[in-house]
Amino acid sequence: MLKVLISNDDGIHANGIQTLAAKLAQRYEVYVVAPDRERSATGHALTLHKPIRIEEVDIKLPVAKAFSVSGTPSDCVKLALNALLDVEIDVLVSGINHGPNLGSDVIYSGTVSAALEGAIHGIPSIAVSLVNGFEKMADFNHGAEFIYNFLPTAMEVGIPAKSILNVNIPAVPLHEFAGIKIAELGTRMYTDSYEKRIDPRGGIYYWLAGEIIETGESEDSDVEAIRNNMISISPVHYNLTNFNALTLLQEKLEIAESV
Amino acid sequence: MLKVLISNDDGIHANGIQTLAAKLAQRYEVYVVAPDRERSATGHALTLHKPIRIEEVDIKLPVAKAFSVSGTPSDCVKLALNALLDVEIDVLVSGINHGPNLGSDVIYSGTVSAALEGAIHGIPSIAVSLVNGFEKMADFNHGAEFIYNFLPTAMEVGIPAKSILNVNIPAVPLHEFAGIKIAELGTRMYTDSYEKRIDPRGGIYYWLAGEIIETGESEDSDVEAIRNNMISISPVHYNLTNFNALTLLQEKLEIAESV
Repeated sequence: MLKVLISNDDGIHANGIQTLAAKLAQRYEVYVVAPDRERSATGHALTLHKPIRIEEVDIKLPVAKAFSVSGTPSDCVKLALNALLDVEIDVLVSGINHGPNLGSDVIYSGTVSAALEGAIHGIPSIAVSLVNGFEKMADFNHGAEFIYNFLPTAMEVGIPAKSILNVNIPAVPLHEFAGIKIAELGTRMYTDSYEKRIDPRGGIYYWLAGEIIETGESEDSDVEAIRNNMISISPVHYNLTNFNALTLLQEKLEIAESV
Repeated sequence: MLKVLISNDDGIHANGIQTLAAKLAQRYEVYVVAPDRERSATGHALTLHKPIRIEEVDIKLPVAKAFSVSGTPSDCVKLALNALLDVEIDVLVSGINHGPNLGSDVIYSGTVSAALEGAIHGIPSIAVSLVNGFEKMADFNHGAEFIYNFLPTAMEVGIPAKSILNVNIPAVPLHEFAGIKIAELGTRMYTDSYEKRIDPRGGIYYWLAGEIIETGESEDSDVEAIRNNMISISPVHYNLTNFNALTLLQEKLEIAESV
């Protein structure tokens, strides 16, 4: 039986991870290792300067084991694979995230970073997000059902080396699903406005209050796929070298140095 | 005069950022916006669920302005460019980091993420790290001197689109410097061991205690450049799409679906 590790960044009690774990446990051996609370937009953070607390918990689902961790999504995956589990994990699924991880979202996403951490450890890894699923009680059933059916295909096809699959599920009824699209990451940007406020003691503080800028997106992008009610699947890798720029930069610098 | 924004992840009082700011202020208009305390390994985290406190501080250096921020490196850069500064920044320098950011380090690095945030905002951005500079009083002067001289070249040559330059400086005396290498990111890996401990009340906690695995590195890698006492400069981008895998994945999935 496929051994599946599940993590997320919304916390172990979030509806998205619970729906996913319940569905996958119908067929697979499921291990849940997830943050004890919401950890959105943690990026690929690690806890180095504080001890990490871990508690084995009963999440009232037929999973093999479940652990609640006082750390980030990356901490959870590192701990699961190196300290907590004594089984060989076959595949990691991070999610289902409450809200999209499209385009440049992936840079900030704890959901994606948990999956990347799996890939770094050589485990086939998938990040899954529900678009428009910010509501606590959004319907994650279609997403969970899709992953349940998709896992054997993904294992058979193989996930590209040093990469994860980043999956976004449109929040529409089943009969409106328009298929699956292998998509590149879009250029989704935010305005990054800040709200400046004064506390009751006169101190100044700021809240990040960014809104999405609707830029022109490529037809091949995940953003466009979701707009068309398709499930987007993007191969995302963790080697950040801009190889195209390497040679050019070398030449330009040589010219600059020689002047 | 070039307007330079400086940030880091070791905190505004760290020796690395202070040495850099002092040197660059000799020639450029310098703005410092940095975390109020150490924020190493924060990855590309953002502060969404807490208000962010900001204080204008006197860092006893001839800089234009300096702000201490109760947030992550990415928060600092977002705030600087969107709320705190009323000037157009020409170039961002993040660092000098205490310790290397080589190979897969960049995924976890707050120093690199501050620079990537600059690039996302369309600002030419450079991350700088001193290898073996974990000691609080390491000598950052060579690194600061290098960046001081390198900035005009970098501006002239141009930093590749949607990318930053990730610079690592070897911690050797000036006469041992062996030049500059445009390098790809190496595959530097850690063992990721965890130390399990018991607190005085019987509670279990873990410390991350990873050590570097010395794997075979490409001759073209930043790790190898540093080993040879060269300054490594790597173009690092933030579009994480694995374009090579897109078509292949498309084909494989079509075959799998049709079976």
